[in-house]
Amino acid sequence: MNVTNEGRARFRDLGLTLGVLPPGPVNAVTDVPGVLVGHFTRRDGPVPGPGGVGPFNTGVTAILPHGDDLYRVRVPASIAVLNGSGEVFGREFVDEMGMLDAPIMITGSFNVARVADAVIGETTRRDPTVGRGGGYVHPLVAECSDAYLSDLVARPMGEAETLAAWAHATDGPVPEGSVGAGTGLVSFQFKAGIGTSSRQIALGASTYTVGAVVAANTGPREHLRIDGVPVGRLLRVPKPSWVQQGSIIMVLATDAPLLGRQLSRLARRAHLGLARVGGTAHNGSGDIAIAFSTGNRYVHGRVMHGLQDVDNTSMSACFDAAVEATEESIVNALCAATEVVGRHGHVAPVLPLEPLAALLRRYDGAGRGE
Amino acid sequence: MNVTNEGRARFRDLGLTLGVLPPGPVNAVTDVPGVLVGHFTRRDGPVPGPGGVGPFNTGVTAILPHGDDLYRVRVPASIAVLNGSGEVFGREFVDEMGMLDAPIMITGSFNVARVADAVIGETTRRDPTVGRGGGYVHPLVAECSDAYLSDLVARPMGEAETLAAWAHATDGPVPEGSVGAGTGLVSFQFKAGIGTSSRQIALGASTYTVGAVVAANTGPREHLRIDGVPVGRLLRVPKPSWVQQGSIIMVLATDAPLLGRQLSRLARRAHLGLARVGGTAHNGSGDIAIAFSTGNRYVHGRVMHGLQDVDNTSMSACFDAAVEATEESIVNALCAATEVVGRHGHVAPVLPLEPLAALLRRYDGAGRGE
Amino acid sequence: MNVTNEGRARFRDLGLTLGVLPPGPVNAVTDVPGVLVGHFTRRDGPVPGPGGVGPFNTGVTAILPHGDDLYRVRVPASIAVLNGSGEVFGREFVDEMGMLDAPIMITGSFNVARVADAVIGETTRRDPTVGRGGGYVHPLVAECSDAYLSDLVARPMGEAETLAAWAHATDGPVPEGSVGAGTGLVSFQFKAGIGTSSRQIALGASTYTVGAVVAANTGPREHLRIDGVPVGRLLRVPKPSWVQQGSIIMVLATDAPLLGRQLSRLARRAHLGLARVGGTAHNGSGDIAIAFSTGNRYVHGRVMHGLQDVDNTSMSACFDAAVEATEESIVNALCAATEVVGRHGHVAPVLPLEPLAALLRRYDGAGRGE
Amino acid sequence: MNVTNEGRARFRDLGLTLGVLPPGPVNAVTDVPGVLVGHFTRRDGPVPGPGGVGPFNTGVTAILPHGDDLYRVRVPASIAVLNGSGEVFGREFVDEMGMLDAPIMITGSFNVARVADAVIGETTRRDPTVGRGGGYVHPLVAECSDAYLSDLVARPMGEAETLAAWAHATDGPVPEGSVGAGTGLVSFQFKAGIGTSSRQIALGASTYTVGAVVAANTGPREHLRIDGVPVGRLLRVPKPSWVQQGSIIMVLATDAPLLGRQLSRLARRAHLGLARVGGTAHNGSGDIAIAFSTGNRYVHGRVMHGLQDVDNTSMSACFDAAVEATEESIVNALCAATEVVGRHGHVAPVLPLEPLAALLRRYDGAGRGE
Repeated sequence: MNVTNEGRARFRDLGLTLGVLPPGPVNAVTDVPGVLVGHFTRRDGPVPGPGGVGPFNTGVTAILPHGDDLYRVRVPASIAVLNGSGEVFGREFVDEMGMLDAPIMITGSFNVARVADAVIGETTRRDPTVGRGGGYVHPLVAECSDAYLSDLVARPMGEAETLAAWAHATDGPVPEGSVGAGTGLVSFQFKAGIGTSSRQIALGASTYTVGAVVAANTGPREHLRIDGVPVGRLLRVPKPSWVQQGSIIMVLATDAPLLGRQLSRLARRAHLGLARVGGTAHNGSGDIAIAFSTGNRYVHGRVMHGLQDVDNTSMSACFDAAVEATEESIVNALCAATEVVGRHGHVAPVLPLEPLAALLRRYDGAGRGE
Repeated sequence: MNVTNEGRARFRDLGLTLGVLPPGPVNAVTDVPGVLVGHFTRRDGPVPGPGGVGPFNTGVTAILPHGDDLYRVRVPASIAVLNGSGEVFGREFVDEMGMLDAPIMITGSFNVARVADAVIGETTRRDPTVGRGGGYVHPLVAECSDAYLSDLVARPMGEAETLAAWAHATDGPVPEGSVGAGTGLVSFQFKAGIGTSSRQIALGASTYTVGAVVAANTGPREHLRIDGVPVGRLLRVPKPSWVQQGSIIMVLATDAPLLGRQLSRLARRAHLGLARVGGTAHNGSGDIAIAFSTGNRYVHGRVMHGLQDVDNTSMSACFDAAVEATEESIVNALCAATEVVGRHGHVAPVLPLEPLAALLRRYDGAGRGE
Repeated sequence: MNVTNEGRARFRDLGLTLGVLPPGPVNAVTDVPGVLVGHFTRRDGPVPGPGGVGPFNTGVTAILPHGDDLYRVRVPASIAVLNGSGEVFGREFVDEMGMLDAPIMITGSFNVARVADAVIGETTRRDPTVGRGGGYVHPLVAECSDAYLSDLVARPMGEAETLAAWAHATDGPVPEGSVGAGTGLVSFQFKAGIGTSSRQIALGASTYTVGAVVAANTGPREHLRIDGVPVGRLLRVPKPSWVQQGSIIMVLATDAPLLGRQLSRLARRAHLGLARVGGTAHNGSGDIAIAFSTGNRYVHGRVMHGLQDVDNTSMSACFDAAVEATEESIVNALCAATEVVGRHGHVAPVLPLEPLAALLRRYDGAGRGE
Repeated sequence: MNVTNEGRARFRDLGLTLGVLPPGPVNAVTDVPGVLVGHFTRRDGPVPGPGGVGPFNTGVTAILPHGDDLYRVRVPASIAVLNGSGEVFGREFVDEMGMLDAPIMITGSFNVARVADAVIGETTRRDPTVGRGGGYVHPLVAECSDAYLSDLVARPMGEAETLAAWAHATDGPVPEGSVGAGTGLVSFQFKAGIGTSSRQIALGASTYTVGAVVAANTGPREHLRIDGVPVGRLLRVPKPSWVQQGSIIMVLATDAPLLGRQLSRLARRAHLGLARVGGTAHNGSGDIAIAFSTGNRYVHGRVMHGLQDVDNTSMSACFDAAVEATEESIVNALCAATEVVGRHGHVAPVLPLEPLAALLRRYDGAGRGE
């Protein structure tokens, strides 16, 4: 086992695999060329601040389709809502225009407004025409509730935190688990957070990547399945008292040249990846998928855009990749997450990796008739 | 007045104009190069057939994006529903795939299934692979109720009638009023039916056309406005007892290279054209817009499609054109429709053209301070 | 094993269970009081008829929310489309009005129009005001492609077949597998067809049932999972050459007093049940869920309706039930289906029950550490 | 003429009427019993503040369905988007749950996040369980751009301003024109802002009210029609250089007991009211309607809700009322707005009332043949 981060690991580091399609080089959303991810993490532990405010175990995660001017060089995007008990700042623009003109941000629930405000401020600083006759920017900000471990009501994520996540966005391996917007998240009554994965597919003569990155905060323990194995029922780990219903944000990226319509179809497959780990999208959860393609660009100011679109009949491979990448991203969030003791001393236990690996190996043996 | 068709005329033949954008050469949806329209008309008058079946004052109207193989060479399309009290056979495919693979057909309400069945049959004859491993065809069939003037329950439009409308589809001027699917239609308690119009717009260095063709069957008398004038309240014409709520189908075509997303936006503007003539989309009406573009093609069997898309900021001109073309199409349906005496001797009076023209001229004079 | 129907069985007859919620008395959609299901089955085997038409291995399945006048006593309903490569006749009315005014019918793809036509005809016979001033009926007809085993192009399901399915609708146990609309269906490259299941849940002091019935015709072999076990990869059974992408229709019924909005949410959970058996909703499939409630009635002719609606926070139990009932319905379709040899001698092998049970028992033992 | 507010008036004060349905007692959204409206207005004129920040000619408008605890006693609601170039904070919750749990706020574009943040803060103060295990609040905040007259980029509307609008919400007459969120708005290149109107309808034996309140900021001059008269083309008034495309928010309220589905249908009719004054929903505009009913309540914490729903066939009267109330609200916004000189000395001229009245009287005479 390739142990990392306080004894935690990624799922494949356990010698296990999920699905049939091959991951990209770093098995992360950043395998899609150009995509950048950045985190700002605040992790106070259980100690409130002066005046009883806090503790804060929360953060911001920024996902950028490319490193250029996001307002001027836009990419196709779409949003698919499985359960809408959540807030996505900026959804109208994506729904209507089928594109992104700002980074995607994820944060703790009540911070959405402040993070959106920070993106507006930063964009108007970078481009002084925005809001002054040169158009409007539409931050896309989604959220999960970290109220179990963090003081949600105080809304600690503002301008500095948002810009830090944005500024730190890089390619390459993506920190997972209890980082960024994932710092205070819990899924299946295990500590969870950020997870990522990718898959490669061939369309015609070309190879493309579909990557996923999730902020996972959903589901009761007994629903959890990993590679089909009812891990949630089988592993004996104490459960926190609070069953998190606090949303899962699933972001899909691909370099396959899709447009809004195909990205809407792709985004709906993230929901199926969630179902594979046992999610049933309970009432209080915002189960929301966002998909974008780096394979097409809308350059601001052009009258006409030359674009490409993958044929419908080739989409099935993209769909399979989206399901697998989402599934493994959620599993990676569980495997990588480190324990956080938070508000009121709340603690969500981590998914124990050795028992998990042992269990899955036993199942695999059963499949082979051993 | 350029009198045609039993003393009826098109609106502009009355020396009047509507809106500010210029129409195309024939002021019809067929000004969009390649678009073809065909009608099959059955007009029995008030006489039932043997056994009390009928009379039939109904028909089928076929609208084709081009004259090639519609199954193999597909065009982008979208549907926008203002009020869904109606049936659109084939909507799932258009919603999901953003394209058409069959002609658009309009007919009397309960005939939708039989007309769709006829399109399936014809497509499988033309291309024997369809339904036998080579994919499936998705007829797009919409309807208006002609129950006031025609025996709806007997469902007289079947294979022969559908194929006749399809086969007769041509470019050039489009017969309007009491023809095709418009034969038995009533709007604002005047005889109505098929109407068409077009507008030309410049996008960058190119000129494009937005054309509309409607089957109009909606609204109480007092709602009718033409060029803003409350014609329905002012013209003294007896009203039929039955206030038609029987749907309006609005088909928009353009050679501007749009894709499904922009076509969805365009289609929603047809609703605004309906509102300009006073429509409020009553409960029992299917107020449905279908938009397609001939400026992009999805050729069956390709893995990747090269496409163009008009920039968002250039869409406003397309929207204005769609509103105006829809508005004038509805007015043309009213101006061109000839009287039909139908079932149970029902009769919907025609909109009287000379009083209409006199009224609008008087209003125009008032505007100029005369 | 409680062997039935040519040596086939339901999943629970194998001594196995799925999920954690209890099924209703007959573990079928008909556990929802009042719900009726009827099949018409035509099973020619591989022999074409005179002139080379056929063979027909197809049918019609009727699902009725109650046994009263469906046109006059309507129930709330909603449709959720995961992948829209299919045709649902009558969707506009359900989307707009949130109710059903006709039975739900399922049939082979190209028969949709003919089955809808039959429902229109029958409704106008039962109620002569329909289409004659007393409103319009909106058949709800969905489809799966049985082209692998049946002659789809000939469209054999018409009036007689539709009315037979409707007339035979009863409560109690529902025939499953290769019957009705399921006669020619294939899923995961195994013979499939109709399957049903139910779950009971408590809301407040009351117990309600969520039932599902599916027509399953989707997915490549390697995707199939049953209770999480990758059965499709592990069972050594030859595969038919044709990977069916031909749709899955999932109908959910409940006596919990829901309205259109909650039913839309419920319907989306059927997609998650599909994902649990491995479905990824490939491009060519119409993956469509329809949900209705018998716990509210809209009686035709009333100005105001008194209704009940389950609170949002109680919906999670309904969602879990919908996921489990859909999952087990698909599994039941596979377990119950008998072999059909059809068009061109095509044959889809049946899922072998004893090896399946042995495999699942082995996995279960692995979970218990045996 | 009943002159008010710097010589401005409401449309009916000019002795004119619009539509055929009767308004409520104060011809405002507050004719719906319980509904409250409050404004916070900041009107600096053209003078920037220290450091060149500002000037601010902007505000916040609060619309409350009732004066009780909005978080605990929720009302059904729905949103209909005609053109989505805008931001509606909180749309996911309304779409999914079909209800409101917070006041509706309208403000200048880039202030949406700050106003939403203020509503979150205030709700968590009023109810300390919110965000701490007792659920989440979902502010509903919409916007129009006042960038022509106000410094949008500085985002001056924060907590104090939002809470002031909320605290000042009252029933009775609603200040219109250049107040609240309407302070800096321009429509049809005339000064516009807030407008309101209402209509009364009979459903069965009961009388209900449909009220509208708009923040109007849309359309080029030549599109403007009032009561059908092409006022925008006929009145000779200089045009500002900037054609506002900055959104129109249309809020509909009714005491008719509707639920989310019917409210969605109602909301779409607001778009038709906009079309009646000439709107074509240009690309850069967020043309968004929000509808709610005070005739049904979802009381937080109940398992089951007893509700009423108007029958579909009675909705047409509601639709007509919504169209007329929206139309007259926009006209009232234009009639009541007072001149604002703002950023860079920009000025939008007011619609001149005497020439308007003279023109409409002349048209009316033409209609009567005078």
